[in-house]
Amino acid sequence: MTRLTGPLRIWGIKYGGMVQPGLDLTQLVFDVCRRSKTPLKDGDIVVLTHTVVAKAEGHKVALDSVTPSDLARAIADKVAKPPEVVQVILEESKRIVRIERHHLITQNEAGVVCANSGVDQSNVDGGRSVVVVPPDPDRIAARYARRFLKLGAKVAVIVTDTLGRPFRIGEVNFAIGSYGIVPFNDLRGKKDLTGRKLRIKRIATADEIAAAAELVTGSSSEGVIGAVVRGYPTRPSRKGASSLQRPFSQDMFV
Amino acid sequence: MTRLTGPLRIWGIKYGGMVQPGLDLTQLVFDVCRRSKTPLKDGDIVVLTHTVVAKAEGHKVALDSVTPSDLARAIADKVAKPPEVVQVILEESKRIVRIERHHLITQNEAGVVCANSGVDQSNVDGGRSVVVVPPDPDRIAARYARRFLKLGAKVAVIVTDTLGRPFRIGEVNFAIGSYGIVPFNDLRGKKDLTGRKLRIKRIATADEIAAAAELVTGSSSEGVIGAVVRGYPTRPSRKGASSLQRPFSQDMFV
Repeated sequence: MTRLTGPLRIWGIKYGGMVQPGLDLTQLVFDVCRRSKTPLKDGDIVVLTHTVVAKAEGHKVALDSVTPSDLARAIADKVAKPPEVVQVILEESKRIVRIERHHLITQNEAGVVCANSGVDQSNVDGGRSVVVVPPDPDRIAARYARRFLKLGAKVAVIVTDTLGRPFRIGEVNFAIGSYGIVPFNDLRGKKDLTGRKLRIKRIATADEIAAAAELVTGSSSEGVIGAVVRGYPTRPSRKGASSLQRPFSQDMFV
Repeated sequence: MTRLTGPLRIWGIKYGGMVQPGLDLTQLVFDVCRRSKTPLKDGDIVVLTHTVVAKAEGHKVALDSVTPSDLARAIADKVAKPPEVVQVILEESKRIVRIERHHLITQNEAGVVCANSGVDQSNVDGGRSVVVVPPDPDRIAARYARRFLKLGAKVAVIVTDTLGRPFRIGEVNFAIGSYGIVPFNDLRGKKDLTGRKLRIKRIATADEIAAAAELVTGSSSEGVIGAVVRGYPTRPSRKGASSLQRPFSQDMFV
């Protein structure tokens, strides 16, 4: 029958303060939702930006504690960044993918291919510190999901980063860690309405949820630290969003 | 103040029939929304998959009308596809980007870098025809927006395709055409909460809306032809989603 399905609903979580190390994000999110008369429910998805997670978890580095190597100084020259920042980027990287046109593209410790290992100079101590990507965002998502469960809601958790893409202008939000949700919807072998195999093989739903969440989190200048997604069917998965990283050996564009 | 914002809401548009050439998609969507007691409102965003648009617009090619060239036959051999399909893919392409591991990556006439020029063998005449991407999806989006306006709602329109990405496993939905919405949110020069320039420069919001819509459209086997997004601030733009294509001369990964 021809009809509308849904709706899927997405709320932004606006935080009035500055996120400091030790802030209990799960308690914060749980309380905000309850106070806003939209208490978290089983099956909701809580999406948190990695910058907020990293700040709460204390993943930041004071730049005056960093001694740049000769390599960091040489690269800093090419990419027009402070050598201390480049040093942190290199320490956070597994692999340098490109140094080109003032861009430093790496694969970071969390496995994500992105600019500057995801090291973020904005919103931190007025530029005297940088925020680094937590090395295992899947594990953080799992830890947060367990805390939400203790608070009373069985939710999935996604940790995101906003990244550039080849071929496309502009950045979009991606899932770099997740728990409690299948990161991709595997359609291989399924048939279409006429009985033919589908062209689309695997939909990276965790990335799509991250992108959807960005529509309400907006730029970090607005203090929106994440989102609550309601109405998307979740089911447990042993795989986290790190499984969305294609191995370099299978990539045509590295 | 700490609080929830939104919600953004997304409905799926489920169509009970098979989309045939000449089907008036705008009338269909307008009527479904009204009958479902969620009439389209000014500011809504109607998202339609390109496959559905292409079928309604008659952008399909019967494979028995195609004569493969020698080039098409040679490539067909490498990528394990029927030579007739490869011939259509080549005719729909501006440029071959990669032929590798059974994949044929091109830039199609609409400017999008993707597998097989976006030519779709699924859901069409039991495999005897293929659906091709409309050459100017921005123009189609504009035409549909004008029709919606005549029906009584000033909505933005986005045409999407589901595409693979470098570095990541799985496909996500992208905006290949749009009208009535700014395709990317330009944050260049804006400041963060501490007064520093933002790390994020331009958010490709049209791509994020496309990705969000995919969460309710799911696989094409379910007959969901698009989505209605409500609660995202739209404003008119002279640029369509085709402006999200990065010129090859500025791309590090082509």
